Amino acid sequence: MTSSLSLQARLSAIWDQTGSLVCVGLDPSLDRLPAGVTRDLAGALDFSKAIVDATAPYVAAFKPQAAHFGSLGGEDELAELISWIHERHPDRLVILDAKRGDIGSTAERYAVEVFERYDADAVTINPFLGDESIEPYLEHTNRGVIALCRTSNPGSDWLQLQPENDPIYLQIARRACHWNRAGNVGLVVGATWPQEMEQVRQTVGDMPILVPGAGAQGGRIDAVVAAGADSRGAGLLISASRSILFASSGEDFGEAAGQEAARMKDEINFERRKRNR
Amino acid sequence: MTSSLSLQARLSAIWDQTGSLVCVGLDPSLDRLPAGVTRDLAGALDFSKAIVDATAPYVAAFKPQAAHFGSLGGEDELAELISWIHERHPDRLVILDAKRGDIGSTAERYAVEVFERYDADAVTINPFLGDESIEPYLEHTNRGVIALCRTSNPGSDWLQLQPENDPIYLQIARRACHWNRAGNVGLVVGATWPQEMEQVRQTVGDMPILVPGAGAQGGRIDAVVAAGADSRGAGLLISASRSILFASSGEDFGEAAGQEAARMKDEINFERRKRNR
Repeated sequence: MTSSLSLQARLSAIWDQTGSLVCVGLDPSLDRLPAGVTRDLAGALDFSKAIVDATAPYVAAFKPQAAHFGSLGGEDELAELISWIHERHPDRLVILDAKRGDIGSTAERYAVEVFERYDADAVTINPFLGDESIEPYLEHTNRGVIALCRTSNPGSDWLQLQPENDPIYLQIARRACHWNRAGNVGLVVGATWPQEMEQVRQTVGDMPILVPGAGAQGGRIDAVVAAGADSRGAGLLISASRSILFASSGEDFGEAAGQEAARMKDEINFERRKRNR
Repeated sequence: MTSSLSLQARLSAIWDQTGSLVCVGLDPSLDRLPAGVTRDLAGALDFSKAIVDATAPYVAAFKPQAAHFGSLGGEDELAELISWIHERHPDRLVILDAKRGDIGSTAERYAVEVFERYDADAVTINPFLGDESIEPYLEHTNRGVIALCRTSNPGSDWLQLQPENDPIYLQIARRACHWNRAGNVGLVVGATWPQEMEQVRQTVGDMPILVPGAGAQGGRIDAVVAAGADSRGAGLLISASRSILFASSGEDFGEAAGQEAARMKDEINFERRKRNR
C-alpha cells in the first residue's frame, strides 16, 4: 500500500486519525509464543497477524523485525505479514526494522529489498557509514528512512556520546535535517535518554522520532512525551514489543495485547494532555 | 563447513596454504552480468558459482553480499552458493557481508541466521550500537565476527574520525582487542586510508583485517600492504568485487576473472616480498 504522501505528512494524518502514538514491534520469538500457537514459522506468522488485528484500533504503526523472520527462513512470511497489515489496516504505517547500513550499489539493493520486495512504508537504517549509506534510500520519496540517532542501550554511549562538545547523536540529528529534503526522514532515539531526546527535538523541529525502549528497557512514558513531543503534541512513535506481544502467555494473548496497547495509548495521551495544558 | 579453529587460526592456515591474501566479493549485479548469463536470480547464482571456481586457486576467501541476493528474493540461492564454496573449496573462508547491527535477542537471531541458516564462516557487523551488538556473535567461538572500523567511503569521515584526539575508528580497534577473547574477531578498514590502517594495525597486533576499496574505489595495494600487513607479512584479506567479477563482459568472464584474481595475488605478494626484504 504505497501512499503518495511523504513520511511526515502520512504520519500526521495517521496521528490525527488514530489519536495514538503507539507502535507495536513484531518480534515473534518462538520460545515465547503463547499457548495454542505452534512454535514454528507458521505459528509466528499466525501469532503476528492476530496481534496486528487485536492491537490495530489502538496504534499508529507496526514494526516487524527482520531478524526474527530471517533467522527462520521466513522471508515469504514477512512479506505476507506486511501485506496483511496493508490490506486490513491501510491507515497504519509499516516500518521494517532492519537497521541496514551499506553504501553505493549495495545500499540501492537494500532499498529495493525493503521498499519493493517487502513493500514497507519505512525502514530503519544505521548511519555509521555516513551520507553514502542514506542517499540511496532518500530517492524513494514516498517511503520513510528512519536513521538510528541515539539507541536505547547503555553499551552505545562510548560511540554515540562523543565528542563531548558536539556528540555524534546531535550531529546525526543535524544531518537528518539536510537529508530531509522530501519530508521522508525520521530518527530513532531511545526512551531511556529523555535529556538527549529533548536536544534532538530542538534540533529537528517536527521530524518524526521512533522511540524504542519504553517498556522492558525502562524508559518512562512521561519523560519521553515531555521531552520528545513535537509542536503539535505528536511527532513520536513510541514502540513496545514484548510488553504487548507477550502480555499473556495463554490463549487470550490477543485480547491481552489489545488491552496493553490501549493502556499504553491512554498513558501516552494522558501525558500529552498534561503537556498541552 | 564448520572448523573447530578460531577465525585467526583458520585464516593463518589458509594464508599459508593458498599463499594469497585476496578475497573475492560476490555482488552479482544483474545489469552487469556478462554475455551468455541470464539476467535473473538463476543467472546470478550460476555466474557466482563460475566465478568461485575460476578464482579459487588464487584466493583466500569469498565474500557474498547479502543485499544482492535479498533484493531478488534469493535466500535459497545465497545458501546454495555458500554450500557450493564449502563443498568444492573447503579451505577457503566464506564471509557473509551483511553488516548487521542490533542488540539483545535480535542480534542473537541475526547470529543464528548467518552462522546456522547460511553456514557462513564469518560475518561483517556494524558497531554503531556498541558492545551489546557484538556480544551475541562472539559466543559462536568457531565463527568470525568482522566489525566495521574505518570504512572506505569519504562520507563516513564526520563520524569515524571524531573526536580528533582519539577517533572512533581507533576506539573500535581497541575494543576489538577486548572482544577478541577467542581469537574470533576481525576488523574492516578501507584500502583508501593507509595512514589509519597503520594505526589500527599497531593497535590490534595480528588481528585479521578485511580491506575493501582496493579496486574501483582507488585504494593502492602497495600502501595497504605496507601499512596493514601483520608481523608475519599476512593478516589481511584484500577484497575486490567488480574488478574481478566483471573483468570481461563476454563469455570468457570466468577465465578473465581468474586472471584478474591471479594478477591481484601476484601484485600483493610482490609488495609483501618488498616489505620482508
